[in-house]
Amino acid sequence: MTPVARPVFFGVGLGPGDPAYLTVRARQVLDEADRLVHFCKRGRRGNARTIVDRILGPQPAREIALVYPVTTEAAPGEEAYDGPIAAFYEESCALLAAEAEAGRRMAILCEGDPFFYGSLMHLWRRLAPRYPFEVVPGVSGMSGAWTLAGAPITWGDDVLTVLPGTLPEEDLVRRLSGTDAAVVMKLGRHLAKVRRALGAAGLLERAIYVERAAMEGQRILPLAAKDDDEAPYFAMVLVPGEGRRL
Amino acid sequence: MTPVARPVFFGVGLGPGDPAYLTVRARQVLDEADRLVHFCKRGRRGNARTIVDRILGPQPAREIALVYPVTTEAAPGEEAYDGPIAAFYEESCALLAAEAEAGRRMAILCEGDPFFYGSLMHLWRRLAPRYPFEVVPGVSGMSGAWTLAGAPITWGDDVLTVLPGTLPEEDLVRRLSGTDAAVVMKLGRHLAKVRRALGAAGLLERAIYVERAAMEGQRILPLAAKDDDEAPYFAMVLVPGEGRRL
Repeated sequence: MTPVARPVFFGVGLGPGDPAYLTVRARQVLDEADRLVHFCKRGRRGNARTIVDRILGPQPAREIALVYPVTTEAAPGEEAYDGPIAAFYEESCALLAAEAEAGRRMAILCEGDPFFYGSLMHLWRRLAPRYPFEVVPGVSGMSGAWTLAGAPITWGDDVLTVLPGTLPEEDLVRRLSGTDAAVVMKLGRHLAKVRRALGAAGLLERAIYVERAAMEGQRILPLAAKDDDEAPYFAMVLVPGEGRRL
Repeated sequence: MTPVARPVFFGVGLGPGDPAYLTVRARQVLDEADRLVHFCKRGRRGNARTIVDRILGPQPAREIALVYPVTTEAAPGEEAYDGPIAAFYEESCALLAAEAEAGRRMAILCEGDPFFYGSLMHLWRRLAPRYPFEVVPGVSGMSGAWTLAGAPITWGDDVLTVLPGTLPEEDLVRRLSGTDAAVVMKLGRHLAKVRRALGAAGLLERAIYVERAAMEGQRILPLAAKDDDEAPYFAMVLVPGEGRRL
């Protein structure tokens, strides 16, 4: 059922964090690929690579780290961020294409599910027209979060809205007000704003804060019980639906 | 990281259909459980059980089939449907509790991801307060669909709305009009209505019809190229987002 006969590239979803949540196909690709490609920040190992630390020790001969340029002074949507990042994806693809021309098969590691807010997509759209490219779906980070929170997210005919915490506050309020269930991703420094928006939408009491689901340091608590507005980028807020119980 | 020390029940997400998309944890639970529990209709094997046919042959000593009562004349939300279905869940839980008291550990099979529109949730809410219950997240059906359609679903700050095709047409139009990306689940006999709603929301050109993703008989095509409005319950429509490309 895998759609590509002999892929050169694999975009491998690694799931939410616990290697037990890797798929059988992902394990197979990680074992067989000539190169393991991952994104990271300068001086760090990268979240995706860390997820597989317990099953893949250091692989100095196989690893290719794609190191994000430093962009601390700008945000996505600003030219000072988007310009260097786009150049970085271009350069990364040139490097990976050279590897492909040398006959190597590469697994690009992705947290969660590759086609759901994944950085992989920016490589895929450049490389997939030129090389056989298989994407291996993964358990999404949000799925890991609602599972480990013990919080079924949608019941019956519930509508689920997934939205990034990066949106302006008025957009958050409007989107949250009309939905049965919600997941707010990419919290980071946006938690105070997200909290206000949830309050305005009448959802604060149902909101669950989830940090590092299925990883070391997992933290799950009612948002109302969280005393501060500190949150890492990969934290999220869940608002479980209240649809039909049978 | 698995949250329960020695579970009696497992709600096992099996992913979208291809057994290669089972998680490592799901494989382990299927191998070790004393009983394999699945839902089905009278005289059928059940979708979840069929997903693992290729890796688990007939297991006469291990299988427990929970057979849905016939409810052809009524729809969810009507008492003639909800009444018998609720009674069925109660009876199923009594049966499973008796197995638990006899010391058996049970894997309840679930298509996709258990806590995302899963029938499992109706058993879980009755049994989890009484017995150690581990839920194993899975690759969702929609994730299988957008992966195999080659259609990344959300880019940048895209908002994703997931909604059941069972909703009234005016609700579908309203929800679809305000979103960047969408997944319409549970199509079944609702496809004609969903098609009209997508048209009213200006999304028909971007809509992709996906049937049986990652299973035998997979069918993926632009919705506009689909000539009829026949669809199985597990078909869905994807509207990929058009957010920030870098």
